[in-house]
Amino acid sequence: MAKNIVKPSILPGFMELLPADQILFNKMMDTIRHNYEKCGFIPLDTPTIEKSEILLAKGGGETEKQIYRFTKGDTDLSLRFDLTVPLARYVSQHFSDLTFPFRRYHMSKVYRGERNQKGRFREFYQCDIDIIGNGKLNVINDAEIPSVIYSTFKELGFEDFTIHINNRKVLNGFFASLNVDNKAEILRTIDKLDKIGLNAVIEELKSLGLDEERVNKIIGFIQIKGSNDEMLKSLEELNIENDEFKEGLKELSEVVYYIRCFKVPESNFIIDLTIARGLDYYTGTVYETILNNYPKIGSVCSGGRYDNLAEYYTEQKLPGVGISIGLTRLFYQLREANIIGENASSTLSQALIIPMGDECIEHSIKVASDLRENEIVCEIYFEDGKVGKKFGYADKLNIPYVILIGSDEINQNKVTLKNMSTGEQRTITLEEAMEVINNN
Amino acid sequence: MAKNIVKPSILPGFMELLPADQILFNKMMDTIRHNYEKCGFIPLDTPTIEKSEILLAKGGGETEKQIYRFTKGDTDLSLRFDLTVPLARYVSQHFSDLTFPFRRYHMSKVYRGERNQKGRFREFYQCDIDIIGNGKLNVINDAEIPSVIYSTFKELGFEDFTIHINNRKVLNGFFASLNVDNKAEILRTIDKLDKIGLNAVIEELKSLGLDEERVNKIIGFIQIKGSNDEMLKSLEELNIENDEFKEGLKELSEVVYYIRCFKVPESNFIIDLTIARGLDYYTGTVYETILNNYPKIGSVCSGGRYDNLAEYYTEQKLPGVGISIGLTRLFYQLREANIIGENASSTLSQALIIPMGDECIEHSIKVASDLRENEIVCEIYFEDGKVGKKFGYADKLNIPYVILIGSDEINQNKVTLKNMSTGEQRTITLEEAMEVINNN
Repeated sequence: MAKNIVKPSILPGFMELLPADQILFNKMMDTIRHNYEKCGFIPLDTPTIEKSEILLAKGGGETEKQIYRFTKGDTDLSLRFDLTVPLARYVSQHFSDLTFPFRRYHMSKVYRGERNQKGRFREFYQCDIDIIGNGKLNVINDAEIPSVIYSTFKELGFEDFTIHINNRKVLNGFFASLNVDNKAEILRTIDKLDKIGLNAVIEELKSLGLDEERVNKIIGFIQIKGSNDEMLKSLEELNIENDEFKEGLKELSEVVYYIRCFKVPESNFIIDLTIARGLDYYTGTVYETILNNYPKIGSVCSGGRYDNLAEYYTEQKLPGVGISIGLTRLFYQLREANIIGENASSTLSQALIIPMGDECIEHSIKVASDLRENEIVCEIYFEDGKVGKKFGYADKLNIPYVILIGSDEINQNKVTLKNMSTGEQRTITLEEAMEVINNN
Repeated sequence: MAKNIVKPSILPGFMELLPADQILFNKMMDTIRHNYEKCGFIPLDTPTIEKSEILLAKGGGETEKQIYRFTKGDTDLSLRFDLTVPLARYVSQHFSDLTFPFRRYHMSKVYRGERNQKGRFREFYQCDIDIIGNGKLNVINDAEIPSVIYSTFKELGFEDFTIHINNRKVLNGFFASLNVDNKAEILRTIDKLDKIGLNAVIEELKSLGLDEERVNKIIGFIQIKGSNDEMLKSLEELNIENDEFKEGLKELSEVVYYIRCFKVPESNFIIDLTIARGLDYYTGTVYETILNNYPKIGSVCSGGRYDNLAEYYTEQKLPGVGISIGLTRLFYQLREANIIGENASSTLSQALIIPMGDECIEHSIKVASDLRENEIVCEIYFEDGKVGKKFGYADKLNIPYVILIGSDEINQNKVTLKNMSTGEQRTITLEEAMEVINNN
């Protein structure tokens, strides 16, 4: 026996799933991947550990505080905190080997040493798509991204979700027209609307030194509501004489136009002037995605357009547009709310084969091989024990069928197939059994 | 423009692939996963970062030196260096929630700060399967593992590979019958046979203080060759009166018997008395897998039986058997030797849709949506430029078909489909085009 037992546990803030949940999680990953690939995004994988000087090239507040940074020998290393910085480094480094527009997806873990908090994770999956142009990138790409998200969330089983769309140039241009010079702070305040409410936003805007007229204009602006066409019309009617505003509005109109071409239903996307998505990153279209029955979860899929992805690594101008699903957090929230995970199975096996005695093992293996050759996922119960224990194994894992192999079955060249949910049991040929299992 | 450009690069010893290789790599991952799942192994995912006390519970030499270990706040953290220790921790921690035998696969990255060397990686994928019993585990499981490896390597496209099988009890019992007491050192010496050759092994055995008779017996033993049946017969005929030897030989015979039941051809597995697989870990069956045309690559898939997986984390006895494919190294070696990667495509797209003018974009998007609904992977070229540049994009990425959408096509409700390898171009209906693309 062991000398010193170390109590088995994982670090706080890390997610680890039991089999049923893991299978569910992987199915969601597969669905996302399927949709990303269908739209011609190619897979990318980058090292989890990079040079700190690469990951921190941009520098700045939260990132630097949260990053997992350490040394090995003389080297200053860090774990990536997102998949966007590695993408920027990748396209700069391999620029001459890539073909642009470069469409990639990347689904992998990232690391942030955040304060420990329910529903926040220090290791989590991001599922990203980005389209990177060389020098320039057509705004229609900004309309394709939401179409991929639409099909992804549909296939994930959601119906009532809305992709909220805005354009940073519209915001910037509007603020410029008001002659305010603390745009960044105003944006940050507006971004908090969902969290702190309208009155607190008004107070905060006032505290930024804005006079009442300007505060009223800003509040009026972010409260413009209506259908997408009504929103666009209202924005036109503001008659704002600012080039950036006009450019943003033109982009927003085009994005709406082409999203419709991509067959995204009107009920699944909406112009929302209150979303700004951080501060120094996005430069045009921005997205957030809300599950309408679970608004408290917040945005489950966000992103936008950036003018210059890789400015810290190359002189090349590489504009892009992309979006990210934070799958670990999304899964956790859906699971906590019991939206998913009811009656989830702890197995991929469609059948458990039980040999009724040692002399039946050889034939049981043959049956398993036949099933597997026909793409039926199965396993054989080899361990000793009473037959009840063996059925118990199938039961606990939720394996839908048991195939019993005894001497009678071998002599008749048949199998006994038991449907574990109905209890029905029949002795039939293997071919018939495979058909039943496949039609389940 | 940027302030300070940081030269984009990754750390030495880390693998990063260009799109064509990445697609190939992922296909290999998918093939492995398909075979693991078909045999009823369920997916597992554990945190990359664990408590150092967990990962280093066993302690010992190389591991401790190579591990990526660091602190965050007051916590002593490490990156996992394999997937077996996390599995041991997982089954101990979640023991009461799991059903045994517990069959899991895990395909993920592990980290070892090895000396920088061509073909050695500090971050690499392991693709593991293990079957863990509660208290005991039938030896037939030791025969199923090679059958999974056989089907996996077949589907990966290999024909001429051999799974080498041995049993540690056979080795231990044999050495015990010689009355030697430095078994561990002898095993370690034999394990080096492939690397250092027979003469060096003889010298090393002598230097361990073995007399000539014993050295000759050991050399005679590891040189027993022949078919599997001949090997088993030769081992029987040694008439070694040692219980461990007898038990090992019985297990080896059973494993050979059941591997045949699993339809693994005789040419793809062989008893090999020279493999020992490390020292203090495996207790019964051991495996190594050799690509016979590329023996220099070494074992591409290794593993074995262990009596007690989780002794550092629980009092439960959890015997298991498993195997691991080191995919990053395997991929690197195959790629270096040009065994794979010739004419690899840099895209998953089956078709590129080119709108012949802005007025054709809307219809092009409709065509793309139709293709995607029919599971044809495609993308649209939205950027400005001459048509030659657009075809160049398809060409560079190896996209097999281009679909041209001009006013004529829209008016006729047809598309022009160009086969990029033959140059053939036809104006046909979208349904016809989809059939051509699907039959490619």
